[in-house]
Amino acid sequence: MIENLSQPSSATDLITAAAINSFANSSSPRQKEVMQSLVTHLHAFIADVRLTESEWKMGVEFLTSVGQYCNDRRQEFIFLSDVLGASMLTVTLNHPSESDVTESTVLGPFFVENSPHVPLGGDISGGEAGEPCWVEGTVCSSTGDPVQGARIEVWGADQEGHYDIERQDDSLSNRGHLFSSEDGSFRFWAICPVAYPVPADGPVSKLLEVANRNTMRPAHLHFQISATGYRTLTTHLFEQGDPYLKADAVFGVRESLVTNFEKHSSQDTPDGRRLDSWTSITYNFRLAQATHPGG
Amino acid sequence: MIENLSQPSSATDLITAAAINSFANSSSPRQKEVMQSLVTHLHAFIADVRLTESEWKMGVEFLTSVGQYCNDRRQEFIFLSDVLGASMLTVTLNHPSESDVTESTVLGPFFVENSPHVPLGGDISGGEAGEPCWVEGTVCSSTGDPVQGARIEVWGADQEGHYDIERQDDSLSNRGHLFSSEDGSFRFWAICPVAYPVPADGPVSKLLEVANRNTMRPAHLHFQISATGYRTLTTHLFEQGDPYLKADAVFGVRESLVTNFEKHSSQDTPDGRRLDSWTSITYNFRLAQATHPGG
Repeated sequence: MIENLSQPSSATDLITAAAINSFANSSSPRQKEVMQSLVTHLHAFIADVRLTESEWKMGVEFLTSVGQYCNDRRQEFIFLSDVLGASMLTVTLNHPSESDVTESTVLGPFFVENSPHVPLGGDISGGEAGEPCWVEGTVCSSTGDPVQGARIEVWGADQEGHYDIERQDDSLSNRGHLFSSEDGSFRFWAICPVAYPVPADGPVSKLLEVANRNTMRPAHLHFQISATGYRTLTTHLFEQGDPYLKADAVFGVRESLVTNFEKHSSQDTPDGRRLDSWTSITYNFRLAQATHPGG
Repeated sequence: MIENLSQPSSATDLITAAAINSFANSSSPRQKEVMQSLVTHLHAFIADVRLTESEWKMGVEFLTSVGQYCNDRRQEFIFLSDVLGASMLTVTLNHPSESDVTESTVLGPFFVENSPHVPLGGDISGGEAGEPCWVEGTVCSSTGDPVQGARIEVWGADQEGHYDIERQDDSLSNRGHLFSSEDGSFRFWAICPVAYPVPADGPVSKLLEVANRNTMRPAHLHFQISATGYRTLTTHLFEQGDPYLKADAVFGVRESLVTNFEKHSSQDTPDGRRLDSWTSITYNFRLAQATHPGG
């Protein structure tokens, strides 16, 4: 009996060893390290759960469908990485908390290059319906010096929780970029973020469904801030008091990114716009010094 | 300094714990087990290599391209699983060696449903060029009883090492199925297998290239044999003496599946066909009893 039990384990060990060894001559030491570790952990997973052949087939079909769901406007593999916590783990490993620098969080599947440029004080909403939200603050170095000309990319969902690129047409809305002024300050109008469920239409949402997982994300606005000499900051601002702060579907919340979304009912807006109801957010971003030129 | 080092590790542990916990309410205990183990090992991989953000992006783009390369005639994710040893590991876990049963190996990316039916003694080559190969043997139970009416699926590459479904047209060749006769015996003509490199056109082949990996598979013929009351057997027959037996790109070789491909120069073929040069293979397959009905 012991012989019968030990034989298959030794056969599987040989396969794992051969697969690890097949990456021994990789083009670079880093490739070798990454691929050999990947094979080691992938095999450990398969062996630990004693993956059945029908589960293996299901896995192949699932990954295929995730790839085939991707297009220019939808990155379903990023979404998969997000809901498995792999994105946030990678972000956290690469941007450990430092008290004098704004914390990072996930990029998410909805970033696009070439967003519209808006002037300081402009409006990124693109006419989309939703409560207007005035966002202002500064971009500084870790020592508090203002960073002039930082490129601030901003994107957010509409009042139903959908992003522009989830629509069938090509139009963009509630998305744009602007540059910080001489004193590091910035200001713009956007649509006030709301909590929303992650997309329910693709293969990843089916995974969340069978897992009976929370699909909500707390209200947030996305930022990506880049400036010469600094590390690019990819982050969100979250709304204080949001009921989903402790249950974000993609594990992206960090305490330091939770801030007051102040509600106003006066018509006294910062730029004289006449509104009955609006929100304001004030936040000062602090960028880490680039460790490598251009980093 | 110790504080600085311990803080990021604790932040990453919290993310891993939250991601594992997100699958706590899965629809079944097995789903929970598989997904929690997957997340555990995926996170361990990312943490062990301290995956960079550009490597994460490269991984997302690679997996996307693998999914998008799949179509009705090409399963690039199976190919990826094969070259990482994940397929063979799964096969081996589910079919541990038993001395009285034919060993299993990988399915590979080239199996198709609805292959042409050929009669006993027929020819599966479909007119494709290549040295004729006579294949005969029996299908038996583990105790040596003949299995009548077993469905024997056979597929192999042509003399250049390409499968029919790698061509642009819809034609099938060197592929078919037949049924064992009353005494469990079978016989048919095929094209003699040759060693060949795995497909060089998709994203997985680029992975093999940067890894400087051997891309050859030793000469082999694929079989999938199914019969009521028995576990379906997915296997290959490999050619004795092939130089790539110890370096199969997909780790599929098992000693017991290596057999003599006998070369003949006489015109004395088994069914009177006049040939100057042909090969023969004789192999007796033994099927395991199904543990579950229909298994």
